[in-house]
Amino acid sequence: MPANDFTQDEYAERIAKTRAAMSANDIETLIVADPSNMAWLTGYDGWSFYVPQAVVVPLSGDPFWWGRPQDKAGAAQTTWLQASHLLDWPEEHVQHPDRHPYEALAKHLRERGLTRSIAVEKDNYYYSAKAHAILEGAFGPLVDATGLVNWQRAVKSQTELTLMRKAGRLTAHMHATLREGFREGRPKNELVAEVQSAGIAGVDGIAGDYAAIAPIAPSGKEASAAHITWNDRPLGRNEATYFEVSGCFHRYHAPASRTLYMGDPPKDIRRAEDAVLRAIDDAFAAAKPGTTCEDVASCVFESFARAGYEKANRTGYPIGLSYPPDWGERTMSLRPGDQTELRENMTFHLMPGLWTPDWGVAITDSFVVTPDGGEPLADIPRSIHVVPV
Amino acid sequence: MPANDFTQDEYAERIAKTRAAMSANDIETLIVADPSNMAWLTGYDGWSFYVPQAVVVPLSGDPFWWGRPQDKAGAAQTTWLQASHLLDWPEEHVQHPDRHPYEALAKHLRERGLTRSIAVEKDNYYYSAKAHAILEGAFGPLVDATGLVNWQRAVKSQTELTLMRKAGRLTAHMHATLREGFREGRPKNELVAEVQSAGIAGVDGIAGDYAAIAPIAPSGKEASAAHITWNDRPLGRNEATYFEVSGCFHRYHAPASRTLYMGDPPKDIRRAEDAVLRAIDDAFAAAKPGTTCEDVASCVFESFARAGYEKANRTGYPIGLSYPPDWGERTMSLRPGDQTELRENMTFHLMPGLWTPDWGVAITDSFVVTPDGGEPLADIPRSIHVVPV
Repeated sequence: MPANDFTQDEYAERIAKTRAAMSANDIETLIVADPSNMAWLTGYDGWSFYVPQAVVVPLSGDPFWWGRPQDKAGAAQTTWLQASHLLDWPEEHVQHPDRHPYEALAKHLRERGLTRSIAVEKDNYYYSAKAHAILEGAFGPLVDATGLVNWQRAVKSQTELTLMRKAGRLTAHMHATLREGFREGRPKNELVAEVQSAGIAGVDGIAGDYAAIAPIAPSGKEASAAHITWNDRPLGRNEATYFEVSGCFHRYHAPASRTLYMGDPPKDIRRAEDAVLRAIDDAFAAAKPGTTCEDVASCVFESFARAGYEKANRTGYPIGLSYPPDWGERTMSLRPGDQTELRENMTFHLMPGLWTPDWGVAITDSFVVTPDGGEPLADIPRSIHVVPV
Repeated sequence: MPANDFTQDEYAERIAKTRAAMSANDIETLIVADPSNMAWLTGYDGWSFYVPQAVVVPLSGDPFWWGRPQDKAGAAQTTWLQASHLLDWPEEHVQHPDRHPYEALAKHLRERGLTRSIAVEKDNYYYSAKAHAILEGAFGPLVDATGLVNWQRAVKSQTELTLMRKAGRLTAHMHATLREGFREGRPKNELVAEVQSAGIAGVDGIAGDYAAIAPIAPSGKEASAAHITWNDRPLGRNEATYFEVSGCFHRYHAPASRTLYMGDPPKDIRRAEDAVLRAIDDAFAAAKPGTTCEDVASCVFESFARAGYEKANRTGYPIGLSYPPDWGERTMSLRPGDQTELRENMTFHLMPGLWTPDWGVAITDSFVVTPDGGEPLADIPRSIHVVPV
């Protein structure tokens, strides 16, 4: 899907940026197993990342897609690569105890003379310790290029921003569906079903894709846990529900969380809400080109401190094109110590949240860095959505 | 969620089986990073597998859950472990360029004297080459225990089968929704939205969870590619759509695929359908305890050969408890050369399919091995669903 969204010039620019980073790190051949990076470089799309696959970027010539034989047709349909640049491994190696697809990759690399200064994404879900042992057995020590391509993705093109704003429209539509359906006594899975359906059916002709993370939707004490998904417990009164979802348009994301409350929220939750809302305003006002990640995070923690909450962990991360299990780009972070300067058209998910053992209040928004500060990618009312009981 | 479904005796039995396999392989400490294995051993549930986490199984005493500090509350809520057995890593190490959570795991292991004969799941999505380098730096060469816990999961308990049959009810409900909504001119994403909603809202009080794989739903020529998800193209006449989905109940799966056709299917598609349907009948008749995986696969390929199709790749795999990106168990396979004998209450996804460059016909079913042969986990009409135009 993504390949058709972008001009060949844009793909050429992405490859050129990647090669510049390769040269700066003395890398001659880069093996990219992160499906988000594979898609960004070639347009490849498909739920095939549960088996070994990669894009191989040499210093010159087109990159190669490499994967399972039955996924080659998908590569031909979704990437801009010529058939001669689609490589595969023997089908009988799939999830086999004694054989491994990476043996075939080593052979492909040798046949093409791509045997020196090879780099890999050493800390990635889709590149295993076993794959690494096979490649190091064949070529000796490899360079660690974890995040190399991810960093090139940080500043978004105008076309990418258009896709992300459409994702934001989907996110807003999901949250509108959520507010409408949030009623006492409804089993939570029914509400999640409506919200997921809204995200995929879409709105105003914008069709949704699957998001890289399932809805996170804890209620009451569950909400003290950060990554609980959902269950069939009826929505109850006098508890906060935290709902984190993202629309996904052509694999681009724009996550946002809101807190909903059935009944009259107690004072401590209102105080937390106030601190979180001010944190967002302050962080968005600060998020201009040249500001550091740490500066943006400080806005959040200073707002929390004014309200009496001590907190200084990570409060946001870059977002964009992604596949499960994470919609973050895993490069910089909005946190103390990160001196990376924001640049125009970078995109982040700002995540101010306060958790106690009894409840959690989080209100989070995705934004793009502009000269006027952070511009939200989705238009969603921020206050706690209160349903009278 | 899973922890509450099972008795403490069942968890104890799982740990005992795992320890027997550890001892047989001279393993004293097993580090389990596969979220499906973590859940099977402890009940842990949460979408937190995008950061490092594991269950550590020593030869005696309770296992340890280890993960991000903010996920400890989730571990306390979902596992049967005592608080003293929930370990974490420093929050500031999350997705940090110069620090790594596995340094903290090495420290935890040293403090507990768990430093000898350590084994890891070397070929798993959630155990990276970088994590491996850190642990080997700390403890020297490690044992590869990829699949060790997965193999213990192969034969399902009665409680597990109950959950899988509920997943099958959800799968059947999703396919009924699909058949009902499959109409000419509908954008495919609208239909996927309905099917996903049906799977989560559930049926007859059975609430659905997120499946480990998104719906695979290619149409026409797209269907020659194996893992294309969906787009917003209207459903058109004279083309086959292949739809692979699974209901998920408390993380247990029962996938099934069906082929749908708008119009009058041509002869070659009907011939492929016939070969696939006979393949299923023959394979299910054969799938009794003592039959080998290869034997079951042969039923499929012999049916294909009788219809004039040469094919002999993998045609099924074990299923059960799972997290993205795969609902397979990654142990044995229904394919030539796999001499593993079926045992009663093993569960598989049988995947007979025929693909040409122009279309794909696949009709697949999940089954449990019984003395009478394969018993389907979901009750879904198998023939191609034809919509007259």
